[in-house]
Amino acid sequence: MSDNPSFVLRGIEDVVYEQRAIPQPGPDDVIVEVKKTGICGSDVHYLVEGRIGDFIVEKPMVLGHESAGIVSKVGANVKHVKVGDRVAMEPGATCKKCELCKSGRYELCADIVFAATPPYDGTLARYYPLPADLAYPLPENLTLEDGAMMEPLSVGVHSVANLGGFRTGQSIAIFGCGPVGLLCMAVAKALGAKRVIAVDIVSQRLEFAKTYAATETYLPPKPLEGESKIDYSRRNAEQMKQQLNIQDRGHNTIDLVIDASGAEVSIQTALYIVKTGGTFVQVGMGAPNVTINLALLTVKELNYKGSFRYGPGDYPLAISLAASGKVDLKPLVTHRYAFNDAIVAFKATRAGKSEDGKGVIKAIISGPE
Amino acid sequence: MSDNPSFVLRGIEDVVYEQRAIPQPGPDDVIVEVKKTGICGSDVHYLVEGRIGDFIVEKPMVLGHESAGIVSKVGANVKHVKVGDRVAMEPGATCKKCELCKSGRYELCADIVFAATPPYDGTLARYYPLPADLAYPLPENLTLEDGAMMEPLSVGVHSVANLGGFRTGQSIAIFGCGPVGLLCMAVAKALGAKRVIAVDIVSQRLEFAKTYAATETYLPPKPLEGESKIDYSRRNAEQMKQQLNIQDRGHNTIDLVIDASGAEVSIQTALYIVKTGGTFVQVGMGAPNVTINLALLTVKELNYKGSFRYGPGDYPLAISLAASGKVDLKPLVTHRYAFNDAIVAFKATRAGKSEDGKGVIKAIISGPE
Amino acid sequence: MSDNPSFVLRGIEDVVYEQRAIPQPGPDDVIVEVKKTGICGSDVHYLVEGRIGDFIVEKPMVLGHESAGIVSKVGANVKHVKVGDRVAMEPGATCKKCELCKSGRYELCADIVFAATPPYDGTLARYYPLPADLAYPLPENLTLEDGAMMEPLSVGVHSVANLGGFRTGQSIAIFGCGPVGLLCMAVAKALGAKRVIAVDIVSQRLEFAKTYAATETYLPPKPLEGESKIDYSRRNAEQMKQQLNIQDRGHNTIDLVIDASGAEVSIQTALYIVKTGGTFVQVGMGAPNVTINLALLTVKELNYKGSFRYGPGDYPLAISLAASGKVDLKPLVTHRYAFNDAIVAFKATRAGKSEDGKGVIKAIISGPE
Amino acid sequence: MSDNPSFVLRGIEDVVYEQRAIPQPGPDDVIVEVKKTGICGSDVHYLVEGRIGDFIVEKPMVLGHESAGIVSKVGANVKHVKVGDRVAMEPGATCKKCELCKSGRYELCADIVFAATPPYDGTLARYYPLPADLAYPLPENLTLEDGAMMEPLSVGVHSVANLGGFRTGQSIAIFGCGPVGLLCMAVAKALGAKRVIAVDIVSQRLEFAKTYAATETYLPPKPLEGESKIDYSRRNAEQMKQQLNIQDRGHNTIDLVIDASGAEVSIQTALYIVKTGGTFVQVGMGAPNVTINLALLTVKELNYKGSFRYGPGDYPLAISLAASGKVDLKPLVTHRYAFNDAIVAFKATRAGKSEDGKGVIKAIISGPE
Repeated sequence: MSDNPSFVLRGIEDVVYEQRAIPQPGPDDVIVEVKKTGICGSDVHYLVEGRIGDFIVEKPMVLGHESAGIVSKVGANVKHVKVGDRVAMEPGATCKKCELCKSGRYELCADIVFAATPPYDGTLARYYPLPADLAYPLPENLTLEDGAMMEPLSVGVHSVANLGGFRTGQSIAIFGCGPVGLLCMAVAKALGAKRVIAVDIVSQRLEFAKTYAATETYLPPKPLEGESKIDYSRRNAEQMKQQLNIQDRGHNTIDLVIDASGAEVSIQTALYIVKTGGTFVQVGMGAPNVTINLALLTVKELNYKGSFRYGPGDYPLAISLAASGKVDLKPLVTHRYAFNDAIVAFKATRAGKSEDGKGVIKAIISGPE
Repeated sequence: MSDNPSFVLRGIEDVVYEQRAIPQPGPDDVIVEVKKTGICGSDVHYLVEGRIGDFIVEKPMVLGHESAGIVSKVGANVKHVKVGDRVAMEPGATCKKCELCKSGRYELCADIVFAATPPYDGTLARYYPLPADLAYPLPENLTLEDGAMMEPLSVGVHSVANLGGFRTGQSIAIFGCGPVGLLCMAVAKALGAKRVIAVDIVSQRLEFAKTYAATETYLPPKPLEGESKIDYSRRNAEQMKQQLNIQDRGHNTIDLVIDASGAEVSIQTALYIVKTGGTFVQVGMGAPNVTINLALLTVKELNYKGSFRYGPGDYPLAISLAASGKVDLKPLVTHRYAFNDAIVAFKATRAGKSEDGKGVIKAIISGPE
Repeated sequence: MSDNPSFVLRGIEDVVYEQRAIPQPGPDDVIVEVKKTGICGSDVHYLVEGRIGDFIVEKPMVLGHESAGIVSKVGANVKHVKVGDRVAMEPGATCKKCELCKSGRYELCADIVFAATPPYDGTLARYYPLPADLAYPLPENLTLEDGAMMEPLSVGVHSVANLGGFRTGQSIAIFGCGPVGLLCMAVAKALGAKRVIAVDIVSQRLEFAKTYAATETYLPPKPLEGESKIDYSRRNAEQMKQQLNIQDRGHNTIDLVIDASGAEVSIQTALYIVKTGGTFVQVGMGAPNVTINLALLTVKELNYKGSFRYGPGDYPLAISLAASGKVDLKPLVTHRYAFNDAIVAFKATRAGKSEDGKGVIKAIISGPE
Repeated sequence: MSDNPSFVLRGIEDVVYEQRAIPQPGPDDVIVEVKKTGICGSDVHYLVEGRIGDFIVEKPMVLGHESAGIVSKVGANVKHVKVGDRVAMEPGATCKKCELCKSGRYELCADIVFAATPPYDGTLARYYPLPADLAYPLPENLTLEDGAMMEPLSVGVHSVANLGGFRTGQSIAIFGCGPVGLLCMAVAKALGAKRVIAVDIVSQRLEFAKTYAATETYLPPKPLEGESKIDYSRRNAEQMKQQLNIQDRGHNTIDLVIDASGAEVSIQTALYIVKTGGTFVQVGMGAPNVTINLALLTVKELNYKGSFRYGPGDYPLAISLAASGKVDLKPLVTHRYAFNDAIVAFKATRAGKSEDGKGVIKAIISGPE
């Protein structure tokens, strides 16, 4: 095609379609014709707030970063993919030269060019230029929608398998049943979890989690009037431990807790729930300042890790888990939109449901016709 | 000797000397005639508050747990030490049967019998019964005082070398210049640190740290009127980074931060100071609830670990570092007391200085005559 | 019962039934009434050779170490099991005091008392005394035969999951389709292997492996006349790589190779097959001296590890894998014998088949009536 | 300068000086005016044999890869170095895109362009083009000769600190007292080794090692007539253990053994010497096929690792160790030659001594005038 329609965020609540120049590949790049793009909470956040933490939208920016498509051009040095290949697109191009890139933690590269993180354009356009090593050929049994889902699935892989070090036979609790939480559950199940405990304050979300990848669910009680957050969290943890027979040591321990909710009380509760000597991984940003119980951290010798995006090996493992059927992505794609209806897709994601009342887990926007 | 005088805490601010029964060794135990015992902040805490967190003094308890002495009896199965040997005493007898004991994390054993942690008696007595494998023969060039200092030195080894994974050529910042902070610095220096940055709000403590094991010091500014803790901490961190040329990535990064202060602002500042992808170890308990910046934890993918006491290999490494001269313990022993003056020793430690105005780092009480 | 019939090896090819004293439990022990015992290659080896390496049978020794049974007495301190409980029996009692025991590698304890390793008696008796922490209660859905199989399954867990660090989505090749090789395959499959390649020189064994846990099999060619072992192995490796599309790097790599054959050519071939930067675990002893290609070890930066028995966490994971249905042990138990027919069981194991011509994978002997 | 004289290997024993085109930097490259180049055993090997293993010299190739120099041109994107900077040159340019590069093991990249490894030209020329991230600015207190020595020192860092995981207070034995062996000793000492045991069959080399970085030395006995290598090695190991009081477990163990000799008997002996549960790192290639005792590997659960060149973080740590004075490189540079005398330098290195009889450890060739 000879045009490059793009879905551009100009400022808070201000999106338009624009024609952008068609990108040309450098020698190590490919140009991907984007076919499917999932909407992420961060896309919505930029639309509504114009910023996430220190990342501020200061000039028009194409949205979207959870994408898959078809290779339309390849640079001179590119060998492992060819025009016409269906690929999942890892959206962070890193410098490959800094200490962090070279030592296996490229997600922390200071110079990362990440799609739809200001000031860099995203993938909601006809064409997107990508370093060829970030274009992963899709196995035949995966769809382009599956390919777009590799992005949030890689977040789950990074948190659960990589940073969390989760192993077959272990138990996990996951706070928050949004797309990332659900995909963390899916990864844990795929890795052979003994128990996958889903926690959320919305019972319908728990019900879905149970049908999807959780072995058990927990619905926290409401806070009492005047109860402090930390008091509530201790009470909540005690109830959860009793209700689900969770111990600190020995059998029935929770080896790994993931917080995918960002809520302060989730984090506080998690420190009580995780086993002595266990690991707690925070994925996503949530509340900027949270109060934690330091005594738990030290007396239990916890390992509290932040998880940011994904790193080496995460996309390949995500693709492998989906291609082998260990993770099923289809139940999560609840809504599909044409490129021209992108704004409707954002509206539904933002509301948590479409106009017909159907809850949104993941809405996917097709590429321009 | 045929008696066993003991220094007993009966309740808050209530200590007495009592005669206790002379312990007899089980087949795998030794009886140590205790010769030197350092006073720890926790001993003082029990004296003043009657509790530390959930550990509550509910019946009379002998104080003291930083000790060395001479083996006076050995059980039938004991081979590696004999009567007359000078030994450092590791004060936590563990069950050796639980999953945590067997997997190399015995410090987390639920059934640990730890000297002077309620309800278990401590070492401030003539005789103390110890599992023989916790009695470490002292090399000839170490004194019994050095032997008593192995306990807090092992806390430093556990935090810096073991949990912190600190390696030769790395840089460290340590918040708090009390005995544990200073010993963490000593361990970092012994391990071949590039930079050892000491942080404290008392300039005299920084001066001592500089003469002891720090390569640099940092004195935080005073908070502004009405400034929130988190705002103060951000400002403090910015000043510290500028003043000491600390970067987030590349050269001049802080690979590991240890908090040995327990102060909320130290912890908050630490998360800004530590490098992207770095590790932050909390040693000791301090403020029960602290507010942390979650965005830093996630965006920098930090590893925030609690450190509790010491585990396998920590005592041996501590002894090795001292015996090889890599760690010098003598400058830290500022005060010495006879057994009968134990209460004076506690008073000085509590005040931070003796009656003559000399600041206390570590006060050591000799065994009964 | 008031007697303790035992199956005793007195010397090479010399076994008898003897009455032994009924053991009494120490305070931390249990007495198990042994109900099922699998025969291991090492048992046969002692019968035929009177030794394995430096372990020499110099006085009469009860055989057997792969056992499960019912607790018949408990020591005073024992809490987690009670009389009547069905338990899997981990057969190595360790000192719990040495550096190796305390640091999480108890399988290397110098003072281990291992059943049926000279000079220590084994489990082929009515009663066997066991430290209580080595008696693992069997979940309801596991049989006593399953319980006996926990011993060789733990060897697989130790090699594949623990030392091999095998993760979901990785690929493995296993040389040797005896019980240990098959159980390594079962563990790899349970952990979510992408490819499980079985290698053996007996095609029927490969056929069984394929029905059991392998995804692919490979039958090495016969050596050419006059071909050196190392030349043969290189040729064999090239054929295997071509036939199964195995690469050194990138996709289609073998992340982990296990040698459970002990054959020199297997080991030589393995170093060619395993991926660059990969891991090779040797389980079991086999040929005492083997010739390896050092250039492969260095240029590929391989990690070549010896695996001996099992350590912390291996029995629990083995039980978990079996109880969750991820590992099915039943197909491996091909022969069953009464206690009084133990000698027949040994004969069949030694011959590799029973008198009716049926191949033996694992023969299990019931406890005395 | 407007020419680029180069020292070129055309075939076995056939070297000439040639003028080569002056290289121009790509946008991410620098051109270094090479000032100092050490001769490595591999350079000599190519000169004498025309090949090392599968690396075969099939067309003329500039020799040399241990170099430092002064930046003479920088590409458009280069920021961290500028013209005139003195830099150590890491000689392996990797693809930065493959799984191994991205996961932190770039030394195993299939597409590495390594100086003076066929078919790629080396550094013995006036100018050498280098990816800028492989040009490490030298601290002021390091000379250009020190800079050239960073290459073999990085081999030591990779083997001892990185793959060997050597920690302060541990003990090491190193077989072979050539430049790499000596630098492994220097690294171990810099990391705070308790014992550094040097092993060599030439007593003068041991004497030098003792003055340099070893704490102890061991001279193996001569083999007896008719004694097999493996018998010799067992006897040698027993003598070494007795003479130096080396144990398998507990105190006085050797945590890490490095073989930098490539001799079969060294490797055989090493497996006896290293502690139960210990690590053995093979650096360099030596004898292609060696016979090892498999029983030792398994019963002791050894970890036998191949080490190839150096990876992420090795050059920076090497520079840090030298700049901080923990490693002194000057004693190793025994011979210095002008560029026009390169052939004399090779002759001396090959003979192990210069014409005046002085033993060569490292000969360094200056850049063209």
